[in-house]
Amino acid sequence: MDERAALALLSAELEDAGDDAAVVDDLVITTDMLHERTDFPPGTTRYTAGWRAVGASLSDVAAMGAEATAAVAAYAAPAFDDGELLAFVRGARDVCERVGASYVGGDLDEHQEFTVASTAIGRTDDLVFRSGARPGDAVCVTGTLGRSAAALELFNRAGDGPARDDEDDLERANALFQFEPRVAAGRTLAGYATAMMDSSDGLARSLHQLAEASDCGFTIDADRVPITDALTDVADDDAVLDLATTFGEDFELVVTLSESDLEAARSVTDVRLSRIGSVVTREDGITLDGEPLADRGYTHG
Amino acid sequence: MDERAALALLSAELEDAGDDAAVVDDLVITTDMLHERTDFPPGTTRYTAGWRAVGASLSDVAAMGAEATAAVAAYAAPAFDDGELLAFVRGARDVCERVGASYVGGDLDEHQEFTVASTAIGRTDDLVFRSGARPGDAVCVTGTLGRSAAALELFNRAGDGPARDDEDDLERANALFQFEPRVAAGRTLAGYATAMMDSSDGLARSLHQLAEASDCGFTIDADRVPITDALTDVADDDAVLDLATTFGEDFELVVTLSESDLEAARSVTDVRLSRIGSVVTREDGITLDGEPLADRGYTHG
Repeated sequence: MDERAALALLSAELEDAGDDAAVVDDLVITTDMLHERTDFPPGTTRYTAGWRAVGASLSDVAAMGAEATAAVAAYAAPAFDDGELLAFVRGARDVCERVGASYVGGDLDEHQEFTVASTAIGRTDDLVFRSGARPGDAVCVTGTLGRSAAALELFNRAGDGPARDDEDDLERANALFQFEPRVAAGRTLAGYATAMMDSSDGLARSLHQLAEASDCGFTIDADRVPITDALTDVADDDAVLDLATTFGEDFELVVTLSESDLEAARSVTDVRLSRIGSVVTREDGITLDGEPLADRGYTHG
Repeated sequence: MDERAALALLSAELEDAGDDAAVVDDLVITTDMLHERTDFPPGTTRYTAGWRAVGASLSDVAAMGAEATAAVAAYAAPAFDDGELLAFVRGARDVCERVGASYVGGDLDEHQEFTVASTAIGRTDDLVFRSGARPGDAVCVTGTLGRSAAALELFNRAGDGPARDDEDDLERANALFQFEPRVAAGRTLAGYATAMMDSSDGLARSLHQLAEASDCGFTIDADRVPITDALTDVADDDAVLDLATTFGEDFELVVTLSESDLEAARSVTDVRLSRIGSVVTREDGITLDGEPLADRGYTHG
């Protein structure tokens, strides 16, 4: 059974699961496990790992339209080096501070592979789910896509050697990996959104998941997909659009809202909000420039 | 740096860390990572693993005197077998139901070693910390100690072979591993406790941690330490007391309270509450039958 089949099995078993975060009373709660082999390429600093692991959970809180309250993380490594551990904690704390949450610690575990499990909680009385998108709605994304794809290219270029001329690439890659969880945007968009989720598995897969939950389709214009310059700088021209739509791990918000609310939503959102297309009926499917957009993306290892 | 040194480093860095759970407004939050090599002996079922991992976090909520609200868990394994995964989820859900909490899902991760990261949240307006014990207070433990030590002995006896006559041992071991988190007891004891924590690292280490946080000492009577029959049944007579006081992983509550409150606290607590000794001054140290009780215990791997 692959991870997606397993998730479907769990959704059926647990009625509270299946959105970006679970809801309990006025709280949302979400947890993520990341590990070195699949999530932290050689060259990723522990500061970046702390930022990114906790940021991934904060992004799920954002996707529910909630305020981020607090986060914890379990840090597992073969050995505890004080410099690495403090760097991790500072990364985790800084990403929490960025979104107004408290980083309140966690657990340590001796473990063969560097592994992080982070959990974030948030609060809201105005939840936004993946369901709720209606044909005719506009579909938008925050920020730009492709940061993580660009970062991975830079990490790969630098390899894991300490060569002097790789340092620039590693520094840029780490900076790209330190994304800003869209908590503030999620809060303001919650007032307008009919459906919302984060793009952690890539835009294509997010659209398929929104379509599944909302029983709708999407028509997307490729030239409206906002792509970071960092990706166009490092990737082959003919790979850019594919990477931006399927690589994922960008942790932007994908949101649907009434066309008539679009300008009002833009005016209160603290980041760029790009309209990339429209919600259509389920029968019309999910298309990019008129061609079917496959449910392809990064399945988190 | 070993795990304890690393934890001390983090306590200094994070002012909200250092008790059984972190506190954010009226919420408590705690996270634990467990993995196969050190926490789930061969023969541990996935149902037991789900129960135990989530139970460990619920025990930390109990130790703060809080109501248990919800829990999530990240499940990591080399492959996702649907029977194993459902068994895990049912164990996690059952332990939550036992204490009135909701199990609301989590995350999946492909990982070489079976690993679980669980997080629980709770609520209270009447927190109990590790600090607050005063010389003259009685010190008590809930339930009995030695369940996990007994279970490990039974797991070891059975080995990892599927021999027919090992099944009884494995069944008993799994049952012992499914402890009841002391959430209800923690809630009622919160009305009386001057200090409280759980015994996950063993009674001896818990007393040292309480002494450190409360700036006190303890005098403990060995013959008042409540030991489960399961341990006396399987362990050598001369090892029983040492296992009961240092093995840990029993997830009972260690609580200090005014002597004059002892009977009232007993009358409202839903489990046996054994007075094992008294709080003394820091100068008097931590003693078991008059002999220094070493800060020895199980450091979670």
